[in-house]
Parts: sequence; structure tokens; C-alpha cells
Amino acid sequence: MLPSFFYFVAHLFKKQMSLDIFFNAIEEEIHGLKYGGNPVELYQPLEYLMSLGGKRIRPLLTVMAADIFSANWKDAVRPAVGVEVFHNFTLMHDDIMDAAPLRRGKPTVHEKWNPNVAILSGDVMLICAYELMTAVEDDIFKQVIKRFNRTAAEVCEGQQQDMNFAVRNDVTEDEYIDMIRQKTSVLLGFALELGGLIAKINETNIQLLFNMGVNIGIGFQLKDDILDVYGDPEKFGKQVGGDIIENKKTFLLIEALAQAKGKTEEQQLEQWLSAVGFDKNQKVKAVTAIYDSLGIKQMAEAKMNEYFRKGLTDLEKLDAPAEKKQPLLQLIQNLIEREN
Amino acid sequence: MLPSFFYFVAHLFKKQMSLDIFFNAIEEEIHGLKYGGNPVELYQPLEYLMSLGGKRIRPLLTVMAADIFSANWKDAVRPAVGVEVFHNFTLMHDDIMDAAPLRRGKPTVHEKWNPNVAILSGDVMLICAYELMTAVEDDIFKQVIKRFNRTAAEVCEGQQQDMNFAVRNDVTEDEYIDMIRQKTSVLLGFALELGGLIAKINETNIQLLFNMGVNIGIGFQLKDDILDVYGDPEKFGKQVGGDIIENKKTFLLIEALAQAKGKTEEQQLEQWLSAVGFDKNQKVKAVTAIYDSLGIKQMAEAKMNEYFRKGLTDLEKLDAPAEKKQPLLQLIQNLIEREN
Repeated sequence: MLPSFFYFVAHLFKKQMSLDIFFNAIEEEIHGLKYGGNPVELYQPLEYLMSLGGKRIRPLLTVMAADIFSANWKDAVRPAVGVEVFHNFTLMHDDIMDAAPLRRGKPTVHEKWNPNVAILSGDVMLICAYELMTAVEDDIFKQVIKRFNRTAAEVCEGQQQDMNFAVRNDVTEDEYIDMIRQKTSVLLGFALELGGLIAKINETNIQLLFNMGVNIGIGFQLKDDILDVYGDPEKFGKQVGGDIIENKKTFLLIEALAQAKGKTEEQQLEQWLSAVGFDKNQKVKAVTAIYDSLGIKQMAEAKMNEYFRKGLTDLEKLDAPAEKKQPLLQLIQNLIEREN
Repeated sequence: MLPSFFYFVAHLFKKQMSLDIFFNAIEEEIHGLKYGGNPVELYQPLEYLMSLGGKRIRPLLTVMAADIFSANWKDAVRPAVGVEVFHNFTLMHDDIMDAAPLRRGKPTVHEKWNPNVAILSGDVMLICAYELMTAVEDDIFKQVIKRFNRTAAEVCEGQQQDMNFAVRNDVTEDEYIDMIRQKTSVLLGFALELGGLIAKINETNIQLLFNMGVNIGIGFQLKDDILDVYGDPEKFGKQVGGDIIENKKTFLLIEALAQAKGKTEEQQLEQWLSAVGFDKNQKVKAVTAIYDSLGIKQMAEAKMNEYFRKGLTDLEKLDAPAEKKQPLLQLIQNLIEREN
């Protein structure tokens, strides 16, 4: 038994090790970036937001996808950081639109500076993301930019849909899934696709990588919705019930509105949605109880697992040796099991 | 005399004709653009702003630069429109930052919709500009994007400097020229450079085109500053004296502050700059009188002509037959002589 246990530990250690190597390479690249010097008001907010950390999931996906098919995963680090800079650009602008005071527990850029700074510094971040993409080889550059353009436009479309949904009460489950596909998931899809493009793999595998990212991304966002209500307050990091307090149109609320139709829960839910001057804890407790009595958590988990399963199937189908896929599988499992 | 007069008219007609042909091709391309469909809130503001017209100077520069060196100027139309979309993106975001109510005499996007729409629709415009750039041939694409990135970042830097200057009282002439170089002129430089890149000319000519655009652009902005004070109200289109009313740090004000040092005009100028609740016409009249007594108009015109001259010298040096350069020379002369 000892040898197999030894191999098991060594295997685990190796998996963690490669995750660490990729993560450190990405952090090092981010740390060493020269975004531009003057005026400082333009570039400081960019460096501030990038320095707040985060899981760096998107660049990890790019680098790990490249590593599955190519020995030169380091070629993917700089464009991967481009994806992360793009992601942070969307955060900077979304935070203005959502009037969010905090990001990763720190003041948002429009709070720390002002909205004009956040608009303009965000603009230069988007340009910076395109500049980082120029690190890919010439023969794939146009393809990369075309796919990046399509992705970036879809992310904007998703954000606009999200804002539209805030003032609608008839959002369907399908519309919601399509919105999070655009706002969150296509970028995870592109992150993986980019790794594949850099490794110059065939279109079938590229498509599998993209679909995997989209599916995992939808599951990831559904997990977010669930954690916001059912997360462990000790581990979640944000206020549990934040979405309920704000009447945010999450999968859970949309499903509850649909399931409550004609039942006693319908009126209760409507009352809480239109309530003003309520006690926050009381609202969270009451709406959670409505979700519970309608079985919403189970429905959301079923939907989430459906997408995670699809994503894992895409990974399985990917034409590469199982051990090469291990680090990416590990990262995806971390995402599936995360509690914050 | 008749024949030479005939040739002169025919020549004028031909010059105007090629300007019209280029302009119409650009308008047609803009009109036919499919930016994306849904959500409408994202794409309507983009189409609205693009449909408000304008002189289309930047795309004209691209197409005309390409036409000097290549028979296929039509290849330049789509990327040229990318430059125009980029320019309009900067207008959409700048108008939010400047809280401008009107653009080309119509409500700005943040006024007609709201600031969030103007932020997000502007973002998608920037992405759209990059997508239009993909119309250039593969072998020059990365070079085009790298130069476009550098230009776009400089435009943001210039806008940030402009905002910084608004709260400073010690801006020097050199700092001002450098700000307008970034905010306005490098994009005219890039527009010409792009035409040259598309026509695949040598680096010396590319550099001449870029410098020409920068020099003409600085002259163009100085002309703007002068017209705002000394323009003919019948022809100017905007309120004459708008910059004076707002204490805008134009070349004229910066020069006046410098020239007034130690003279009686110093205190008068300071008083008007710090005045509140003043009569607008009275302020415009008084500050204009101060400019007059200090000879500011002449200084600004001298500086403007210096840059226009530099730009025309660059055009002269450009390695191409004089008659091929005629349409571009005509456009530049229109810019030099414009009264609005």
C-alpha cells in the first residue's frame, strides 16, 4: 500500500505544482507589465485594479490549454494576461454602471478616484489588452483578434442585457442563461480557445475548448448565484443574501417567480420584491424560505451540474493524453468545489 | 486665355470630384455597416452618433493617402471607417466626462439615453473599430494594430492631460501643444499612416505621412482655439466665446496668462477667470479685449501657420507625383481655410 499511496501523493503534489508554476508565471508577467507612464491618473487605476489579485482563472485557462498541446506554454503567458486585463477592464466599467463601492474588498476605481477616471482608465485597459494580444505569432494574429473582437462585443451585449433585466419582471430561464453565457462564459471560452490557437491545434479541438469554457462558465455563474444565497458565511467572503436584498435577477429568483405562479408563494415573493424600508436579514430569511419551499436550490444545482457535466465531457473528448489534461481538470474541479 | 481658364476650372472640378468620390465611398461604407443587432440599447447609440455626420476628415485622410500610392484606394475604405468609428468612440466617452449636452447640434448619447449606455456603447464602438481594422491584408495587420494601439493610448493620455489642465493654472505653451498633439493630432497622423501602410509604401514615406498628420492636426486644433474667439458668428456654428465663458485652457488663454505677467492685463484676466455670476457677453468682450491688447491672436496664428507649414512641407517631401498629391493638398487647404 505504501508505494501506491506515495504515487498518489506525488501525483497530487505534481498537479498542484503545475498549477502553481502557471499561476506564478502569470503573476510575474502582470507584475512586470509596463502599461505606460503618463499621466499617472490614467495608469495608476489600471495598476491598482490589476494588483488587487483574484484567482486569475482566465489566464490560467489560456496557459493550461496551450500546455496540453504544446511544450511552449510560456508563449501563452503574455496573451493570457491580455485576457485578464480585458476582464479587469470590464470590471472597472461595470462597477461604474452598477455603482459598486467595493471590488475584491477594496474601493472601486470610480470611488477611489472618480467616474471619469474609471471611464478613461478602463478605455486604456481595453487598448492594453489588444496590445498584449500582439504577443502571439503573426500567422495566427488576425484569427486571434477576430475571435477576441467577437468575444469582447458579446461581453458588452451580456452586460447590457443584465442591465435590461434589472427593470424587467418577465425574464425567462433561457434568456437568463443566454445573458450569463455572453456576460461571463464566452470569455472563459475564448481564454481556452486562445491557448489552443497559440498551440496551433485543429479546429475540432479549438471548438471543444471553446465549448468547454462556455459550459464551465455557465456552471460557474450558476454556482455564484447559489453561493450568494446558500454559501457558508464563514467562507463566502461577501454578505450572504446580497442578491436577495437587491432583488437581483439571478437564476434562483427567475426560477422562483416561475415556480411560484398560482401558489401561495407568488404573493409573498411579490411583496418582498416591492418592499421598501425592510429589515435586510428578515428579507433574506423570508425569501430563502420561499426558495426552500419551492425547491429552487435543487433546481439551480441540477442546472449547474448539467453545465459542469457538459464541460467535463468536452474536456474528455479533447484529443490529448489524459495526463496532459490533468492540471486543467484539477482547475475545473477547484471551480466546481469552490465555496467563495 | 479661354483654354487655360478652361483647364483651371476642369482641374478644380476634378479635384472636387475626387474628394466627392472618396467622401461618398466612406459615407456608403458607414451607412452599410452592420454593427451588431442585440440588445438595441447597445447598438442604437453607436448608429445614432455615426449618423450625425461630420466632415469625415480622418477616413478621408486614410483613403487619400492610399490613393497617392496605390490604384486600389477602395481597399482602404473599410479600415478608414475604423478610424472614424474610433474617433466617434472618443467623442462619446469625452462627452460624458465633459458633461457636454450637444454634439453636432444634437443631444449627446449620455443625454439622449444615459451615462451607462454611453459608457457601454462606447466600449463596443472601440471593439468595432478594431474589427474594421481586420479588413487590411494579413501581412500588414499586426503592424497596423500595433500603431493603432499606440495611437489610441495616446489619445486617452491626451484626454487625461486635458482634464488635468482644467484644474491647473500653470500650464505652459509646450505642455499645451503636447496635449493637443496626443488628444487630436496623432489620430490624424495615424489616419494618413494607415493609408500608407495599406498601399505598402516604404518607412520614410510612412513617417512623412504620420508627421504631416500630426503637424496639420496641431494647426487644426490651434485654428479651433482661434475660431472659438474670433470666428464669424454667422459661419462658426457654435457660440463664439464658449471657451472664454468656460475658462477653457486654450492656447490663447495660456499665452495671455504668460504675456500678461507684470502688466495691467494680469489682474484683469485673473478677475475674469475667478468671476462668478458674470454676464456672459460682457466676459467674452472683456477677455477678447485683453487678448487683443496683448496681441494673442497674432501669436496664435503664427504658431498655427508654423504647424500648417511643417505639414505642407512633409507633403511636398512625400515621394510621389505632384498631381497624385493634389486631392490631399486640396483637403488640407480646406482645413486651413475653414471657418467652422
